[in-house]
Amino acid sequence: MAVYKAPLQEIRFLLEEVLDYPGQVASLDAYKDFDLETAMAIFTETSKFCTNEMLPLNASADLEGLKYDPEKKTVTTPKGFKELYKKFNAQGIVGISQPVEFGGQGAPAVIGAVLNEFQVSCNQSFAMCPGLSQGAMHAIHSHASEALKQQYMPKLVTGEWSGTMCLTEPQCGTDLGLSTTKAEVHGDHWKLTGTKIWISFGEHDLSENIIHLVLARLPDAPAGIKGISLFIVPKFLLDGSRNPVFCGGLEHKMGIHASPTCVINFEGAEGWLVGLPHKGMQAMFTFMNGARLEVGLQGLGMGEVAYQNALVFAKERRQSRSLNPAKRDTSAGADLILVHPDVRRMLLNCKASTEGMRALAYWTAQQLDLSFHHPDPAVKADAADMVALMTPVVKSYLTERGFENISDCLQVLGGSGYTRDWGIEQFLRDSRIAMIYEGTNHIQALDLVGRKLPVDNGRMYRSFGSKVGRFLKQNREDAALQEFTEPLAKTLELLNGITMEVAMKGMTDPEEVGAVASNYLNLFALTAIAWMWCLAARASVGKDDAFHRAKLKTARYFLSNVLPETRALVAFIKAGKAPMMAFEADEF
Amino acid sequence: MAVYKAPLQEIRFLLEEVLDYPGQVASLDAYKDFDLETAMAIFTETSKFCTNEMLPLNASADLEGLKYDPEKKTVTTPKGFKELYKKFNAQGIVGISQPVEFGGQGAPAVIGAVLNEFQVSCNQSFAMCPGLSQGAMHAIHSHASEALKQQYMPKLVTGEWSGTMCLTEPQCGTDLGLSTTKAEVHGDHWKLTGTKIWISFGEHDLSENIIHLVLARLPDAPAGIKGISLFIVPKFLLDGSRNPVFCGGLEHKMGIHASPTCVINFEGAEGWLVGLPHKGMQAMFTFMNGARLEVGLQGLGMGEVAYQNALVFAKERRQSRSLNPAKRDTSAGADLILVHPDVRRMLLNCKASTEGMRALAYWTAQQLDLSFHHPDPAVKADAADMVALMTPVVKSYLTERGFENISDCLQVLGGSGYTRDWGIEQFLRDSRIAMIYEGTNHIQALDLVGRKLPVDNGRMYRSFGSKVGRFLKQNREDAALQEFTEPLAKTLELLNGITMEVAMKGMTDPEEVGAVASNYLNLFALTAIAWMWCLAARASVGKDDAFHRAKLKTARYFLSNVLPETRALVAFIKAGKAPMMAFEADEF
Repeated sequence: MAVYKAPLQEIRFLLEEVLDYPGQVASLDAYKDFDLETAMAIFTETSKFCTNEMLPLNASADLEGLKYDPEKKTVTTPKGFKELYKKFNAQGIVGISQPVEFGGQGAPAVIGAVLNEFQVSCNQSFAMCPGLSQGAMHAIHSHASEALKQQYMPKLVTGEWSGTMCLTEPQCGTDLGLSTTKAEVHGDHWKLTGTKIWISFGEHDLSENIIHLVLARLPDAPAGIKGISLFIVPKFLLDGSRNPVFCGGLEHKMGIHASPTCVINFEGAEGWLVGLPHKGMQAMFTFMNGARLEVGLQGLGMGEVAYQNALVFAKERRQSRSLNPAKRDTSAGADLILVHPDVRRMLLNCKASTEGMRALAYWTAQQLDLSFHHPDPAVKADAADMVALMTPVVKSYLTERGFENISDCLQVLGGSGYTRDWGIEQFLRDSRIAMIYEGTNHIQALDLVGRKLPVDNGRMYRSFGSKVGRFLKQNREDAALQEFTEPLAKTLELLNGITMEVAMKGMTDPEEVGAVASNYLNLFALTAIAWMWCLAARASVGKDDAFHRAKLKTARYFLSNVLPETRALVAFIKAGKAPMMAFEADEF
Repeated sequence: MAVYKAPLQEIRFLLEEVLDYPGQVASLDAYKDFDLETAMAIFTETSKFCTNEMLPLNASADLEGLKYDPEKKTVTTPKGFKELYKKFNAQGIVGISQPVEFGGQGAPAVIGAVLNEFQVSCNQSFAMCPGLSQGAMHAIHSHASEALKQQYMPKLVTGEWSGTMCLTEPQCGTDLGLSTTKAEVHGDHWKLTGTKIWISFGEHDLSENIIHLVLARLPDAPAGIKGISLFIVPKFLLDGSRNPVFCGGLEHKMGIHASPTCVINFEGAEGWLVGLPHKGMQAMFTFMNGARLEVGLQGLGMGEVAYQNALVFAKERRQSRSLNPAKRDTSAGADLILVHPDVRRMLLNCKASTEGMRALAYWTAQQLDLSFHHPDPAVKADAADMVALMTPVVKSYLTERGFENISDCLQVLGGSGYTRDWGIEQFLRDSRIAMIYEGTNHIQALDLVGRKLPVDNGRMYRSFGSKVGRFLKQNREDAALQEFTEPLAKTLELLNGITMEVAMKGMTDPEEVGAVASNYLNLFALTAIAWMWCLAARASVGKDDAFHRAKLKTARYFLSNVLPETRALVAFIKAGKAPMMAFEADEF
C-alpha cells in the first residue's frame, strides 16, 4: 500500500521564505487569525487525518468501486467511506475557507489549497465530494440571493449536505451552448427537465442531501451560450420531500473508481434560480475557476505521493552495481537503485517540477486571497488579474505534468509499479481524468491565449511580465544568483517575443491561436515556474543547511533538465497552424 | 467497443515504395515464395482474423480477467479465449516465420512483424501467448541440441504447446546476476528448484503443454551473470507425466488483465540444458532480442488502434464552432471536432510518429531477414549490426512514444476517452507495461550506448551514419526533397556531434553515459525516424494522388512538430550527469 507524509517543511519554506505569506496574506485584516504558525498547526493536524484516515481507504475503495441499484436509483460508496465522511466533517475541513457567518472558518484560500493537496495525495476519489461542495458554496455565496444562501450554505459548510455541478449533456461537454435542459415556471420558482451526464458525486450515500447546481434554459432563453441560467436543485426539498432528480446510471472509468460519475435525470425537479436569468455561465465560472485550481492540485498532489513511494522503493531495492566503483556497497550483492543516474533522473524530473508547480499553485491561491481582501483597490484588481491569468495555466500544466511525473515514478519501480501492490498504478489511472474535466486542457489554453491575453491589450500579461522583470532587475547584481536569473531572463525574453508573435498572428487568423495555444500554455507555465525556482533560490543562497542546499540543487536540476523543454515548444509554436491545417479530412 | 482496420495500404506503401521489400527481402533465395503479393495476401487474411476474432474479445477479457485456483494451481483464461486459441492455431500464424523442417512456413521476419502488429492492435493480452511461443522457438532453434529441437519445435510451431521465458526472481529483475534458481544433476538431465516471478503465460488453459525456458545455476556455476544456464522445463514431460512446476499465484496489474502474470515455483522440476553450461544469458538474449522488437510493435500497434478510434470519434462528434468562419457547417449546431486545430495536433502527433515508427520497425525486421539469409557475408554481417543497434531503439522509443500517443488519442475523446466504452483507456493501461518488460527502457538505452556503440570503435554507428549520409548525398540535388533532407542533415550532424561527446565522456566516466543514455536513445530514434520520413517523402514526391499527397503532409508535420523534440534532448544530454549526481541520498 502507498505511504504518504505531508511535505510540511517544504510548505513552510514556500509560505515563509518564498511567497511571504506572513506579509502578503496573514497581514490582511480578514486573515489576521491565520498567522503562519496557526496555518502550520492546521496543516499538521489535517495532514495527520488525511494520512491516517483517508489514505488507508484509497486502494481498497479503488478495488471495490461503487454499487448502483437500478431499481432504487441509489449509489453505494465503498466500505468505510460513510464513516470517513463523518470524521472528515468533524475536522471542519470542508468549510475552512467559507465565511464565518455561515459557520465556516474564513481561512485564506491558500490554506484551503494546501489542505486540498493533502487530500488528493491520500484519496482523490473521496476528496472530490467535499471539493465539489466547496465549489458549490463558492457559486452560491457569490451569486445566490440572501434567502438561498441562508437556506443552503450552513449545511454545506458542515458537510451534512454536499454539492455537485451539472453542466455536461450527452451532446455537449466542451460546448455548453448546445445544452437543452429546460426550466419551466413553477410558482415562484422553476421545474427542470433534462439529462445531465458525467456528474461527479451526483448520487451517493455520504451526505443527507445533495445540492445540484444545474445549467438549464428558461422558456424565453436565447439560443447558445447566452441563454443558459443557473439553478439550485436539491435532492431533498427543504420540507424533506424527495425532488424528482434521479441517478440513471454510473460511468465505468479508467480510474477514480470510488467517485461516482453519474447520469442525472431531472424529471420536473424543482429548482431555484441563482443569479440573473441567462447569466448562468458567468455564475458557473465562479464555481469552475475555483475548481480548476483544485484540479491543478490533483496533478500536483498525486505526483507528490507517487514520488514519495518511488523514493521509498529506490532506497530499498538493490539491483545492479553503481557505474562508479567508489559508490559500490560491497556488503551487499547489488547497490541501491538510487545510485543509478537514470533512476535519479526520473525521480528528479518529478521532484523539480513538483516543487516548482507547488510554488506556482500556492502563489496563485495567495493572489486569490489578495483579490478578495486587499485594502488597495489597485493591488486587489491586479491580484484578480493574476488569478484569471494563472488559473488555466495551473489547471492544465499541473495535470499534464503530474500525469507524466507519475508515469516516471511508476517506471522507477519497474514491474512493481505496474502491479497493484505499490499503489502507483492507481495514481496514474486516477490522475488521467484531471487533464479532461473542468474544461479540457486545450480549453484552458484557449482561455489563456484567446480570452485572458487579449484583455485590455495584454494588461494581465504585462503585469506578469513586469513582476518577473522587476525580480530580475532587483537581483541582477547578485553574483550568487546569476546561474538562476540568467536562464530566467532568457526564457522571459523568449516568451515575450513569442507572445507578441502569437498575438499578431491571432489578430488576423484565430486558427493560428488554436493551433499553438496548448504549446504556448506550457511555455508560459515553464517560464512562471522558472520564476518560482528563482524565488526559491534567492531564499536559499547563503543558507548552509541541508534543506536549502538541496533546494539549490533542485533549482539547478529544473533549469538544466526541465526548463529546456521550452526549446521544442518554441519550434512547435513557430511552425504555426500550417502543418496541421494542411490536411483534408480524408487525409488523416 | 474499439474498431480496427489494418493499415494495409500503408504497409504496401512501406514495403514496396519505401523499404524495397521486393528487392531486399523477397529476392533472397530463402524467401522466394514470399513475394510482395503473397505477403499482402497473408496480411489481408490475417488482418481479417485479428479484426473479426481477436478484437471482439479484447474488452470483455479485460473486464473479466483471469481466475486462479490456489488448490489446483490452475489459471482459467477469459471466456472465448480457448476457442480463439484453436482458431488462431488453425490460421498457422504462430509458426509463420519458423523453419519449414519443423512445420513452419519459413516466412521473412518482416512478415511476422506485420502480423504481430495486427495482433497487438486487436488483443495484446491474447497475442502475448503466441508471441512468447515464437520467442521460445527462436531460442530453442538457435541454441538447443538437435534432439531437443525435434522434441519441442513441432508442437510449438502448431501452437499445440506454448512457451514462456522465466528470468525474473523476487530479488532480481534487471540484474539477473542475482538469480538463485538452481539446477542439480538428475541422470542425463537436471532438476530445477527455485521461484520465478512475472512469468507471462506461465500457467493457463489454452495449450496442451507449456514449455518453460528457465535461467538457473548449475552446481559449479560461477557467481553473477556468468554462472547462469538455460533450461527447457516442460509442464508435462514427454511421457505425459506432470513435471513439478506450479503456478503460485497471479499478479494484479494495471492492464493486460487477460495475460496471466504468474509466480512459478520449480519444485525439483526436470529440465534439459539448452546450449552450453553457464552460457544461458547468451541464449536468452536470442530470445529477448526478438521479443524486444515485438514489444516495440506493441507501442506501435496500440498507438495505431487508438488513433483509428480517436479519428472515428473526431469525425462524428460535433462540438463548438470552427475558428475559421468559412469552415462552419451551418446545417448543424456545431462543427465536427476534426476542424479544431488542437484536435488535429493531437491526432497528427500520433499519426506522424506512428507511421515513422512503423517504417523503422519494419526496416529493422528486414535487416533481421538480411542477417539470416543474405548471400554476401559483408551485407549479412552489417545487417546483423543494424539489428543489434536498432533493437533497443525500437523497443524503447516505440513503447514510450506509443504510450504518449495513446494518451493524446484519449484526450481527443475527452470524458469518453476516460470511460470504458470506447476502449482507449484499456489501450493506455495495456500499453504501459511495454516500457517495463523485456528490459526496462533505460536498460535498452544502456544497451545502445554502453554496449552497441562501443563495438569495434563505433562500427555500428558508423554504418548507420553512412547509410543516412549516402541517402543525403544521393538526393542533395533534388530540389523537391530539400525541405525534407535539410532537417535530416542537420539532425544527423547534431547526432554525430553528440555521439562523439557522449563517447568521450563515457571513456573516463561511465556515470556520464548512464545519466544521458535515455535521452540519447530518443535523439537517436528521432534521427532514424526522420530518415524513414525522408525515404517516404522521396517515394511520394511527384505522385499526384491522395495517398502520396497525405504522406508528404505527414512528413512535413513530423519535421515541424515532432522532430524538434531533439532540441530539448540535446540540452538535457549536454547537461550531463552533474545535475542528478550532485544530490546526496537524503536530499531527494
